[in-house]
Amino acid sequence: MTDYHTRTTHILSRIDELATISEDATGATVTRRFGTPAFLRGRDLVQSWFEAAGLETRLDGIGNLRGRLASPRPGAKTFVLASHIDTVVNAGKYDGPLGVLMGLNLVESIIQQDIELPFHLELMAFSDEEGVRFHTTYLGSKVVTGAFEPALLQRTDADGITLAQAIADMGGNAASLAADALPAEEWLGYFELHIEQGPVLWESKVPIALVTAIAGQQRVELTWTGMAGHAGTVPMPMRQDALAAAAEFVLAAEAFALAHGRGLVATVGQLRIPYSASNVIPGQAIHSLDLRSPDAGQLATAYTDLQARAEAIAARRGLGLSWELVQYTAPVACDRELNRLLGHAIAASGYEVDGLVSGAGHDAVPASAVAPATMAFIRCYKGISHNPLENVEAADVAAALEVAERFLVELKNKHS
Amino acid sequence: MTDYHTRTTHILSRIDELATISEDATGATVTRRFGTPAFLRGRDLVQSWFEAAGLETRLDGIGNLRGRLASPRPGAKTFVLASHIDTVVNAGKYDGPLGVLMGLNLVESIIQQDIELPFHLELMAFSDEEGVRFHTTYLGSKVVTGAFEPALLQRTDADGITLAQAIADMGGNAASLAADALPAEEWLGYFELHIEQGPVLWESKVPIALVTAIAGQQRVELTWTGMAGHAGTVPMPMRQDALAAAAEFVLAAEAFALAHGRGLVATVGQLRIPYSASNVIPGQAIHSLDLRSPDAGQLATAYTDLQARAEAIAARRGLGLSWELVQYTAPVACDRELNRLLGHAIAASGYEVDGLVSGAGHDAVPASAVAPATMAFIRCYKGISHNPLENVEAADVAAALEVAERFLVELKNKHS
Repeated sequence: MTDYHTRTTHILSRIDELATISEDATGATVTRRFGTPAFLRGRDLVQSWFEAAGLETRLDGIGNLRGRLASPRPGAKTFVLASHIDTVVNAGKYDGPLGVLMGLNLVESIIQQDIELPFHLELMAFSDEEGVRFHTTYLGSKVVTGAFEPALLQRTDADGITLAQAIADMGGNAASLAADALPAEEWLGYFELHIEQGPVLWESKVPIALVTAIAGQQRVELTWTGMAGHAGTVPMPMRQDALAAAAEFVLAAEAFALAHGRGLVATVGQLRIPYSASNVIPGQAIHSLDLRSPDAGQLATAYTDLQARAEAIAARRGLGLSWELVQYTAPVACDRELNRLLGHAIAASGYEVDGLVSGAGHDAVPASAVAPATMAFIRCYKGISHNPLENVEAADVAAALEVAERFLVELKNKHS
Repeated sequence: MTDYHTRTTHILSRIDELATISEDATGATVTRRFGTPAFLRGRDLVQSWFEAAGLETRLDGIGNLRGRLASPRPGAKTFVLASHIDTVVNAGKYDGPLGVLMGLNLVESIIQQDIELPFHLELMAFSDEEGVRFHTTYLGSKVVTGAFEPALLQRTDADGITLAQAIADMGGNAASLAADALPAEEWLGYFELHIEQGPVLWESKVPIALVTAIAGQQRVELTWTGMAGHAGTVPMPMRQDALAAAAEFVLAAEAFALAHGRGLVATVGQLRIPYSASNVIPGQAIHSLDLRSPDAGQLATAYTDLQARAEAIAARRGLGLSWELVQYTAPVACDRELNRLLGHAIAASGYEVDGLVSGAGHDAVPASAVAPATMAFIRCYKGISHNPLENVEAADVAAALEVAERFLVELKNKHS
């Protein structure tokens, strides 16, 4: 069963079938947020495939779909192959489901060939990675890794429904969440296949890369306070224009990140001017800053340097500045030994071994807290994701399937 | 009757009384938009003062309050002393009413002293200068100067009421508008007293200045189109960030205006990023540009230069750019001979003669199309207007009253 192209056709047809299940009744776009009826119908479909493959299948308290291929070896640990099946609003078809259904195909191949593994293999379809509904990511993998904080159960969605209620409504069990964690001592490792969601592989014409780290993130809200005034009557030298100060900062952040190489990115994604009018000098401008780097030191340096630049701009222009740290996530390094095996598998499949940093967060972040974890990224069309235009080439999926199968063989050999 | 301080106290108490009449029932702020019940009650009060002064008073078709002091001289022309009594929403007390009630005080003084003028003096309280309700300015002075376009009658306010209906509802007469114009051959000139609405006099500690010109204005809407992308996954050199391009332009416009002296101002007052999120690279940014200058040539140069800069930014960054001219108003020069008389009056009153450009529009714009026109600006608190914080010092009003009275004497002497 090494006809990766035929197997890929099968994977992609399952992805297409799953993508017809959406909160959007027209079916024009894919939306399956955690716990919604569309999510549950989608999970039912994937569960039917897990069961047909012969996996020992169950749903845990937070609604993760878990299929186990037990190893007969005494004291065997568990290797987790996973991704998620929830989506953002107006999503693409591949972000999440590609990893789950490639994983299922790999497991089917192992079962059909009757291969005995020296570890338990657990295939997981996480119920919430995107965090769209409750504004918190990784609900599914937090439960599996024991990182779920019970206080999250009181979070509410846009309709005021608590997470506790949503779990009850979907037939889950909030009381079992602690017991649903795979104990740290039972983990052998974690591996996830995922589309890149960025343009690096697309631009460099490489189908697959291993992931060396998942970037840490600092999110800041800046508020510049100057003096509103009439656009016609206040001479230029007398102005305290909050937007002009913000504009200086936007360019300073861009220049700083450009000067510090591929690892660091800085983005101002949101900007608003309260009470704005075309004939009023902006008295206030409020904007976001999103800083990411795989290197905690670089992230800290960028943060302090840009804060100092902001303060210098405010001082020079005579403006007030509020700088508020909204979120901090530490960078996570992927496991070197797993990446060594993955690099072998990529090279053996005939591809250049390239290491990427993930700028987006993934379930490998909570997984890495309890187990060696890594990921492989698959090239996607122009790097576009979270968008109906999200797409992958079948040839790239076939390449990734071959790599992943070789990786599992490397892993089996290492532990045999 | 040259006790300007006592007269000023009287003017300011009338302004305070008028300010109690507002659409805002709490009376906390002043709002009297054209044609509203509050506007009509306010006009009734001012009309009672016009009549008490002995002026031949009438309301014209668009609701302007007009008080005439006729000259016995055969063939006498008409000199117009005017400002407006409508306000913006949440306005101050002085923008408009100060000019009307100072004018009334000047006329009262002439009547009480039984001075015979060689010209008719017509005191006008325009019904609409701000243009808040129908999104078109100068309705009152356009009628008086014969510039009113009948098509305006079909404009609607936020409630779908046409201007024609609003005129009927307030007891006006849309059919008389053409006849309400003062024929061009009857005009001797136009003079308006107004708060500066800018900080120049406040900063330079001068109570009054003559106005040399009213700036022309060009309003542009710019749309930058790049490529939205994930803030974590798109490396800096691969980005087409629409906000970064807009930021470059904001600073280019500011630097250009700063380099071109006091006459030119450039303002980006509104900016929005459609579908923005803190973790999404802005794919589009849309913003205003407001350019003003008293010099038509400078205005044209600024326009073409900044357009070329925008195009260069778009080309260098690989972005799309749409540049749309939304509005053009030509600059208006104030009358040199009237300003010579006004300068004499300022100097004779003991003040430094300073000439300002008005960056805001005023009724002197339509007036200047049919008659020699000028204005005097009175210092206001920190240059703040269109705001409940709008304020003037009594001493400055007294100074301006003295200057305006001397100016009328100069005018009388010139035409005697």
